[in-house]
Amino acid sequence: MKGRVTVRLKPDVLDVEGKAVSGALARLGFDDAHGVRVGKVFEVELGDVDPAVARERLEAMARKLLANPVMETFSVEVE
Amino acid sequence: MKGRVTVRLKPDVLDVEGKAVSGALARLGFDDAHGVRVGKVFEVELGDVDPAVARERLEAMARKLLANPVMETFSVEVE
Repeated sequence: MKGRVTVRLKPDVLDVEGKAVSGALARLGFDDAHGVRVGKVFEVELGDVDPAVARERLEAMARKLLANPVMETFSVEVE
Repeated sequence: MKGRVTVRLKPDVLDVEGKAVSGALARLGFDDAHGVRVGKVFEVELGDVDPAVARERLEAMARKLLANPVMETFSVEVE
């Protein structure tokens, strides 16, 4: 069972890296691209477990280690 | 139209951050989690375009700026 935790900055937190990427894209001619936000993906191998259990484990990992609850939100997907 | 480019290290490239996260998860009691790989997600606002066009634009952005073709691969999703 494979899972994925995506961690993003909260919408009201300034995303400096996203702003830099937006600027670079505009300079390359991608002036239709705006509001870029940069996040992180953690892809985790979980062995042979039930999808519901895998989802719970991933949420616990995100809460305890992968996401900073002050500035970030996370979402979990199970494959 | 919103799109997402996910950039990952190629499978044969050592993922130092992923190894560190695996170790930290194991120390927190998540010893079922292994093989953690860390990637980046770029979420991009593309204005009012056709999904096929959006996908093409995102692939061009990934090739020209967001991904390093030597060490990384990317995938594109359109919402």
